[in-house]
Amino acid sequence: MTRAYNFCAGPAALPEEVLTQARDEMLDWQGKGLSVMEMSHRGDAFVSIAQQAEQDLRDLMGIPDDYAVLFLQGGASSQFAGVPLNLAGPNDPVDYVNTGVWSRKAIAEAGRMADVKEVASSEDAGYTHVPDPAEWRTRPDARYLHITPNETIGGLAYSRFPEAGDVPVVADWSSAILSEPVDVSRFGMIYAGAQKNIGPAGLTIVIVRRDLIGNAREGTPAMLDYAIHDKADSMYNTPPTYAWYLAGLVFQWLKRQGGLQAMADINRRKANRLYGFIDESDFYANPVQPEYRSLMNVPFTLADDSLNSAFLEGAEARGLLNLKGHRSVGGMRASIYNAMPEAGIEALIDYMAEFEKDKG
Amino acid sequence: MTRAYNFCAGPAALPEEVLTQARDEMLDWQGKGLSVMEMSHRGDAFVSIAQQAEQDLRDLMGIPDDYAVLFLQGGASSQFAGVPLNLAGPNDPVDYVNTGVWSRKAIAEAGRMADVKEVASSEDAGYTHVPDPAEWRTRPDARYLHITPNETIGGLAYSRFPEAGDVPVVADWSSAILSEPVDVSRFGMIYAGAQKNIGPAGLTIVIVRRDLIGNAREGTPAMLDYAIHDKADSMYNTPPTYAWYLAGLVFQWLKRQGGLQAMADINRRKANRLYGFIDESDFYANPVQPEYRSLMNVPFTLADDSLNSAFLEGAEARGLLNLKGHRSVGGMRASIYNAMPEAGIEALIDYMAEFEKDKG
Repeated sequence: MTRAYNFCAGPAALPEEVLTQARDEMLDWQGKGLSVMEMSHRGDAFVSIAQQAEQDLRDLMGIPDDYAVLFLQGGASSQFAGVPLNLAGPNDPVDYVNTGVWSRKAIAEAGRMADVKEVASSEDAGYTHVPDPAEWRTRPDARYLHITPNETIGGLAYSRFPEAGDVPVVADWSSAILSEPVDVSRFGMIYAGAQKNIGPAGLTIVIVRRDLIGNAREGTPAMLDYAIHDKADSMYNTPPTYAWYLAGLVFQWLKRQGGLQAMADINRRKANRLYGFIDESDFYANPVQPEYRSLMNVPFTLADDSLNSAFLEGAEARGLLNLKGHRSVGGMRASIYNAMPEAGIEALIDYMAEFEKDKG
Repeated sequence: MTRAYNFCAGPAALPEEVLTQARDEMLDWQGKGLSVMEMSHRGDAFVSIAQQAEQDLRDLMGIPDDYAVLFLQGGASSQFAGVPLNLAGPNDPVDYVNTGVWSRKAIAEAGRMADVKEVASSEDAGYTHVPDPAEWRTRPDARYLHITPNETIGGLAYSRFPEAGDVPVVADWSSAILSEPVDVSRFGMIYAGAQKNIGPAGLTIVIVRRDLIGNAREGTPAMLDYAIHDKADSMYNTPPTYAWYLAGLVFQWLKRQGGLQAMADINRRKANRLYGFIDESDFYANPVQPEYRSLMNVPFTLADDSLNSAFLEGAEARGLLNLKGHRSVGGMRASIYNAMPEAGIEALIDYMAEFEKDKG
């Protein structure tokens, strides 16, 4: 077996150590004679797995005790509705910053459920920067201010965060959670679909300050009511147990790597290496202003779009997978989440250099 | 490694062949160099897995072409809201039959979203039978009639289905789907959480006649709108890819067993053997009227409740796991889904006979 380097934006590569452990435990978890996916979610074995995962996540991110940590079904798209349903009434003002495709999706969904204002946008600039927080036209009476700290498709990331005062900041951190330390206490809520830096698709983590929940509007589906899940320790119904277990293995792997500061150092090194190579080349290009470049998603174009297919074919032949850019953007994209080793970056750069030499 | 016999009600035992294949493919699916859980849901490899799974399910159940088959996030609890949001307006009449805990949960959620009428109930009789459809007080103008063909907790199952005329019948078949053939065309919608007879928790299958969808009420979260998922082939957002893949492996396993009629024959033999043993014993008892006994979930009590702990300890020591009854019912419960081999039933009966001899 040869493991490829998988640059997929999500579902994304997982650490090989994690997959190996999952494989070894598939039919028999710790001598219990059954797979984790066959366990009752209310039994001692799974409850211990679940609690350990939550504790490890709290340790890694330094999550204060007054925040609930929920392991929910679905992806961030479910929470695009969950956020307004839990944190605002039907006509309440809610502020959103538009930095790309995923911001827009969050805005569209919330727009059907609350009085949404787009308080800042870099759409006209092709999403090549994050608007300066000093210029956001926020409303003091907004129920929350929603941001997308890392845009998976545009490869755009916040370099600093707003001071929202009394307005809680809500962040869809799906594509960069756990990639570097974050001061959770500056946010009212952080949520993230699992399938980039946490585990397999089908799990979403919601970290929310408890004083903000318990007031979901009338008619909110129970499965989207954060207070119900908090009260039930995320076991109001059967949670996605196997995804939760795998997330726990990833958290333990992150601890073994040295935690989020160590990951941030590695991630910065990986990204700098790749952006540095792109910037030095006349053949490859990335349009994002350097200050706002994502450490996780690196879109790039070739000087000649007609070479895209040849680039992708050559990459795949070398075991460099899923480099095609998002259909809405074109070009290429290398997603280099926590699980992508530095050797994967070097292999990609070697190939890019060779391709440029041949075809550039 | 010794695999136990796992009688858990859900998440439940999966076929060992399926787990073995999943284990063998964990780090490298068919030489592609990555795990299924690391694949882009829009890539050729996963799309082929997804389409094959849908086709196999259509083949197994004989699902007509005018029905959508959706692979959604979450469990049946999400669809308790999805059903009224998609099929009824806020004040529309919707009819429900109450045959146990899961009926009641569906009723409670829908009651917050539509004009719910409980048209029949066996609650006063301790859920020991299914009310005769001839006596249901259904409304001809109901938007749908909701039933729960198999109650996981009470161990109660429908022996025949209503003719609802023009009112579509909606069935939460979570705990008995794929256990025997069903005439899908008699239902407007069938839905099922995966974690009993389909695969791991975190996936729900919705089978719905297409003429019933496309009219979700205003404010329905996009993730609960069946028409959106149908239009996107269940890839409106990232679906729970690994659960979908495992469901596909289970469908292939079912085909190898001979399909649903073959499973029904086996399941009937398994259930008859266990109920027969219980009925012949003066020590064990099951309260459900024989006509309405579930083939999947067999609750039973011991003559002396103070022996429950000893029974469970002895069972676990023999590798007979998760026999404790639901906390709302007490006693014991053996869930004997498709993946439970006949040898597991024999092992359970051997133990029950020995326990009775020792302690009865």
